[in-house]
Amino acid sequence: MHKQVDITKEFILNLREVIENKDEKQALSLIGGMHPADIAEIFEIFSMEEAIFLFLLLESELAADVMAELEEDDRELVLRALPSDVIAKQILDKMDSDDAADVLGDMDELRQEEVLSHMEDVEQAGDIVDLLNYEEDTAGGLMAKEYIKVKDNWTVDECIREIRRQVEEVEEVYFVYVIDDDEKLLGILSLKTLIISPSKRKAVNLCEKEILSVRTDMPSEDVANFMHKYDLVAIPVVDSIERLVGRITIDDVVDVIKDEAEKDYQMISGITEDVESDDRMWVQSRARLPWLIIGLFGGIMGALIIRSYQHELDAFRDLIWFLPLIAAMAGNVGVQSSSIVVQGLASNTLNIKSTGRRLLKEFGVSLTNGLILSSLMVLFNLAMNYGSFLTFTVSLSLLAVVIIASVFGTLVPLILNRYKIDPALATGPFITTTNDIMGLLIYLFIAKQLFGVFTII
Amino acid sequence: MHKQVDITKEFILNLREVIENKDEKQALSLIGGMHPADIAEIFEIFSMEEAIFLFLLLESELAADVMAELEEDDRELVLRALPSDVIAKQILDKMDSDDAADVLGDMDELRQEEVLSHMEDVEQAGDIVDLLNYEEDTAGGLMAKEYIKVKDNWTVDECIREIRRQVEEVEEVYFVYVIDDDEKLLGILSLKTLIISPSKRKAVNLCEKEILSVRTDMPSEDVANFMHKYDLVAIPVVDSIERLVGRITIDDVVDVIKDEAEKDYQMISGITEDVESDDRMWVQSRARLPWLIIGLFGGIMGALIIRSYQHELDAFRDLIWFLPLIAAMAGNVGVQSSSIVVQGLASNTLNIKSTGRRLLKEFGVSLTNGLILSSLMVLFNLAMNYGSFLTFTVSLSLLAVVIIASVFGTLVPLILNRYKIDPALATGPFITTTNDIMGLLIYLFIAKQLFGVFTII
Repeated sequence: MHKQVDITKEFILNLREVIENKDEKQALSLIGGMHPADIAEIFEIFSMEEAIFLFLLLESELAADVMAELEEDDRELVLRALPSDVIAKQILDKMDSDDAADVLGDMDELRQEEVLSHMEDVEQAGDIVDLLNYEEDTAGGLMAKEYIKVKDNWTVDECIREIRRQVEEVEEVYFVYVIDDDEKLLGILSLKTLIISPSKRKAVNLCEKEILSVRTDMPSEDVANFMHKYDLVAIPVVDSIERLVGRITIDDVVDVIKDEAEKDYQMISGITEDVESDDRMWVQSRARLPWLIIGLFGGIMGALIIRSYQHELDAFRDLIWFLPLIAAMAGNVGVQSSSIVVQGLASNTLNIKSTGRRLLKEFGVSLTNGLILSSLMVLFNLAMNYGSFLTFTVSLSLLAVVIIASVFGTLVPLILNRYKIDPALATGPFITTTNDIMGLLIYLFIAKQLFGVFTII
Repeated sequence: MHKQVDITKEFILNLREVIENKDEKQALSLIGGMHPADIAEIFEIFSMEEAIFLFLLLESELAADVMAELEEDDRELVLRALPSDVIAKQILDKMDSDDAADVLGDMDELRQEEVLSHMEDVEQAGDIVDLLNYEEDTAGGLMAKEYIKVKDNWTVDECIREIRRQVEEVEEVYFVYVIDDDEKLLGILSLKTLIISPSKRKAVNLCEKEILSVRTDMPSEDVANFMHKYDLVAIPVVDSIERLVGRITIDDVVDVIKDEAEKDYQMISGITEDVESDDRMWVQSRARLPWLIIGLFGGIMGALIIRSYQHELDAFRDLIWFLPLIAAMAGNVGVQSSSIVVQGLASNTLNIKSTGRRLLKEFGVSLTNGLILSSLMVLFNLAMNYGSFLTFTVSLSLLAVVIIASVFGTLVPLILNRYKIDPALATGPFITTTNDIMGLLIYLFIAKQLFGVFTII
């Protein structure tokens, strides 16, 4: 059905020229047979005007598929350029209901109603309106209405007739869902079973009855973990009284898994919104600036702290050599600890153990690492002949900082999680900067105490 | 088939007591009906002795499924505790070939041969040996041999007979693969098409012929991107002359996606090996120590640099207040820039644009952010009445550091990638520490130059 095209520089240049010449026939012959995902990729390389020129050439079915593959921001721009009746008849009518609901969900309510009023497939319009009622990041927001359901008392023959009847609507079928008269989900019947079973057997006697399903209000992330854990390709979604209302397929869940991983990655790298290197300059600037400003204020706090210890630093000015080192180590250790907890919480491996035991272990790990690092620091100071006050202060501070930052880094995401706040926040700017400052405070505090001791001696 | 059990603390305590009493019947009644993924989760909570006690109670089919779900390190321990003939007959014979190859791949060659010699299913043993020939992180290493192939000239009826014949071997069937007499892959035939087509039609006339497939030597990460991009549930794997040799299902690819994301996350959080919060103390300590030691050496280098500017710092001691701030900002900005490139490379959105254009844009972003941050810094200095030399030095350094660290952070992963080195390295300890040091150098260098200027005035 699709030809596999390598999207090379030459291909892009060629296509760009064709677009410039407004050569519709040639343009269509270049992209018409491509996979929708490839066309969407091309759109992201071109300018919006070029992309819309191409989009309007596509026949309806392909246009709908491309629309489903576009990134959200590109999709919004294309949608804004298209008239409502084109969106309704040539795109939404041909899309899977979950993708169509996503597309419609991006519009304001006025536009939604206008577009819906133009739809010809009334059943599809009803499905979309149903789907729009669910929160975006729940099973209800992920599910689609394209599935095949059969009544429990139907025979294999009747089930196959139903599949034949719906074959246009439902592109990919691996299972049919068996329901009773109240629409309650009774079981799953795989096509494989249908194929190999005698034609007069009843669905209810053939189907798998102990099945896994999710409720509409389950958070997307949990749905993803659930399907991944049990290696499911598709899962039925039921409402609060066990009626079948939709199904989720693994490809949608892969998107959730990727998004979640990216969100955590962005948090730890100090980026506040979803940016890609293709995004425009000011989008990138805006995404990075907040973290940097928090970091700047943290640094300023640090500067004020150092200033307040001016007396000790004047009296023993070698202390300043290690100021950045102590601050950086506090930050590094804190991020390590937090990120291990964040990953553990994301993969649900942390549920059983108690907070107390985990902190105890973290204390052990950080004590070990702290002692090794402090010993290295002592060796360096001895080798450089730095004197006992500096050696003692830096090494002891390092040990203290490693332990305190570890425990703090473990505790914060656990606390955030308990209060239903995204624990990944703990790997972000605020806590890291706090750790930096804490490191400086500990170092200067210890220096001050030891300074008193050493000067008395 | 499976009952859904919430793995609560009570359940674990209860099960632990049953194990202590060696009450096999009671233990089996507790876990026997559970899903293999749940049993595997329980194993990870219990001690190895307890897990093996439970494992030996499971009937063969379930034991094999649990084995496939276990984490690699737990699996190795269980395997070491089991005799070769039990592994062969009760586990490998019942596993999917790809999982079986993974299990066998963890053993040394001597043990492999011993286990293989005990296998009763000779065809399965052959499949496993075939699969062991492929590199682990390629399509060949991911694929399984459980698929149904039909000859191009078979009728629908003959295809269905073949499915019936293989129904025991191949658990989940969504497609059958159509091959010619030379085993070359001609097309894919969905079960849906088989079900709704007349029984005398030929496979070759019904199947989808323009299909997507991957070669055995395609890297796993590319397979994952490929299947994700095209929303595929399963993909056929062919050898260099287009012969069908296996198939990869989406669940295996989800593991690859998760692993890749975790690898990048660990790199940026400064953890050098795959650890979970459940791992023992010394494993965790070992995973974190290398980054910290690199950080320590970076800090020591920083200390030496600061020491070498002692003259300037003595003459203008307020400069020391901002040492940690400048170092930290350099590190932060560098990680931001690198991580954006790393994510772009991972999702393949970076292929088209040239390095020059990307650096130019990064320069623009960092100039914007640098100017904003420097202005804030000027405001702070003015508010604090810090004097023109300090104000000028700190603000100018900040601007320079933000721009240089951004460009460096963008360039390094691109260079690594060009030389086929994992670009995520750029977000790791070495480069971040280099950025910190570079920040200090820039700050102190600028201070020294301006100091000359200001003292002349």
